[in-house]
Amino acid sequence: MSNRRNWLKQTSLGIVGLGIIPLEGFTIPTKDNSIEEEEVNPIRLRSNENPYGPSASARNAMSTSINASNRYNWELLDELIGKIAQKHNVTYQNILLGAGSSEILNLVALYCSKKPGNLIIAETTFDYWTITAENAGLKKNAIPLTTDKKHDLATMLNAIDADTKLVYICNPNNPTGTICDNEALLNFIKEATKRTKVLVDEAYLDFTNQPSLANLVTENKNLIIAKTFSKIYGLAGARIGYALAHPEIINEMSQLQFATNGSVSTTAASGALASLNDNKFVAETILLNAEARKYTMEQLENLKIPCIPSHTNFIYFSLENYKKDFFAQLEKNNILGTKIYEEKGKWSRITIGTMKEMKQFIKALK
Amino acid sequence: MSNRRNWLKQTSLGIVGLGIIPLEGFTIPTKDNSIEEEEVNPIRLRSNENPYGPSASARNAMSTSINASNRYNWELLDELIGKIAQKHNVTYQNILLGAGSSEILNLVALYCSKKPGNLIIAETTFDYWTITAENAGLKKNAIPLTTDKKHDLATMLNAIDADTKLVYICNPNNPTGTICDNEALLNFIKEATKRTKVLVDEAYLDFTNQPSLANLVTENKNLIIAKTFSKIYGLAGARIGYALAHPEIINEMSQLQFATNGSVSTTAASGALASLNDNKFVAETILLNAEARKYTMEQLENLKIPCIPSHTNFIYFSLENYKKDFFAQLEKNNILGTKIYEEKGKWSRITIGTMKEMKQFIKALK
Repeated sequence: MSNRRNWLKQTSLGIVGLGIIPLEGFTIPTKDNSIEEEEVNPIRLRSNENPYGPSASARNAMSTSINASNRYNWELLDELIGKIAQKHNVTYQNILLGAGSSEILNLVALYCSKKPGNLIIAETTFDYWTITAENAGLKKNAIPLTTDKKHDLATMLNAIDADTKLVYICNPNNPTGTICDNEALLNFIKEATKRTKVLVDEAYLDFTNQPSLANLVTENKNLIIAKTFSKIYGLAGARIGYALAHPEIINEMSQLQFATNGSVSTTAASGALASLNDNKFVAETILLNAEARKYTMEQLENLKIPCIPSHTNFIYFSLENYKKDFFAQLEKNNILGTKIYEEKGKWSRITIGTMKEMKQFIKALK
Repeated sequence: MSNRRNWLKQTSLGIVGLGIIPLEGFTIPTKDNSIEEEEVNPIRLRSNENPYGPSASARNAMSTSINASNRYNWELLDELIGKIAQKHNVTYQNILLGAGSSEILNLVALYCSKKPGNLIIAETTFDYWTITAENAGLKKNAIPLTTDKKHDLATMLNAIDADTKLVYICNPNNPTGTICDNEALLNFIKEATKRTKVLVDEAYLDFTNQPSLANLVTENKNLIIAKTFSKIYGLAGARIGYALAHPEIINEMSQLQFATNGSVSTTAASGALASLNDNKFVAETILLNAEARKYTMEQLENLKIPCIPSHTNFIYFSLENYKKDFFAQLEKNNILGTKIYEEKGKWSRITIGTMKEMKQFIKALK
């Protein structure tokens, strides 16, 4: 613990983007606190999970809710939606729950593919869900990222034609960890939504100090925002996320679900509800993530593994000059990483685990 | 408790259909046992939930799993699928998990509606999911139940034409509680699947002594079986169910999911896995349900409310000759029931709760 404490004392809070989270009364995480560190074997640095979550308050709420798992609990979902609406200053009718933002992205894909056309998306970005759009008849128009691995918003805007049904922006972007300039993104949305639907995936936005665009959906009928409890809130295994959009879109998407909000379990909803009240856990996660991220990037650069500056809980790096077999090194050390996303440059991604885990990761590469 | 104990002592086990569950070592449920009775307010007799579940072993497993809810846990889903496959004597490739059988029914609807055509279904049955098929271009051909509220299999078979993409059989049927004769159903499936897909929904089959048809999918490429953990296992709020079908169908349906098996949470999978090992809880639920069902039917008949013999955890009855306002009586007594399913005869449904709850239900009607 002492290393972390020292780091926290020495580090300016400014760098980790805590603008929107009240830090008054914030204390260094300890075992009695909302942050728990558990030994995980193998070390999972694969799926951008939060190694500290669910928060203690979420765990308590989930635990209590188990006894009611024999019941369908629509009232609880209503309560959660009300709380989410309040958080984003939108209405109940602007929100649809799903099994993680994955379900939401797929519903958007189905919703936008009622007629054939095209889908504009960055290459490389989070695109597992686009198979749904392609199966439904949308042709994928993949626009390369800039050389610094950011969305090329100007080119994406120019690519919109009369057949474009959807543009997808993952902000910050997965797997590259880059973020769009806020003003540029706002301008892009303003122009693009005059001509087509825009889906902004904010799965990792909570790790940044950029504000959510969620409340823009009240005045923009072509904007859809996807959010998840899987990342900052540490509820990946609970399967809960949500869409924000105009009530008409929400209503139409809900008809593509088997039952409105129907994939969300009582336990997940209870955990999510408690999580929304737990700003302290969020602040702690941001701090610990930033600390371990800073360490990992410095060490990777020392190993001549260049990294893209990250605004998330993962880092994108090039293995082009790395002499050993990266994946063999991970396997030997019982660490789960991902894959090569871009053959040119051998770009891969690593999730930021706990500081202890990142030290084991770096040690494995040496 | 004494009433129940006496009843259990006096009653032949034969009537409650326990043929497939080993009863050796079976003991009368007590508070130390897997069955828990909790006061629920309002009294929920609306959604065919199990008032005793989840089982104690499921609760324990779910509780332990919460700490891992920050992780995606595909290994656990694999383990659960393996266990389900073993139970039904099929392979891993025959199974797809979903958020309750509702997701499964909707996936089947989407899968069968790739081309326009028709869907044959009973009237009245469980049909919330058919909106998906209709939206996707299937015309619903609703075949009336027989006068004793059973599936009219002969007429349904005759209704199949070259455009029929799917026939749906809910067995036992919801909301009527009736069951198809096993041999008649097998013959129906044999003939119908020569010409189209057949979906058998076994959500309530565990309350009967009729065997599951799940293992028929290994030799029949046009048969799909839907099952759920929501009912006998008391996991409605956990959202977990599954399909059994030929690997090709499972594979194609999985591509209509946002991620294969992706809507199922860690907690739900843990609860389901523990439930599958808990035959004692299942046996207890069957006994208690049969006891409360017998009481309720006798009392309803005394009140001149005719009932359809039920093979499930709910009863279908006619309010045609009931003089009071049924729904007002329920509301006054803080009981949630459902609705009128068939205007002709004023047929409604009540879920079997605990014996205590059913006594309150009967009292409310007097």
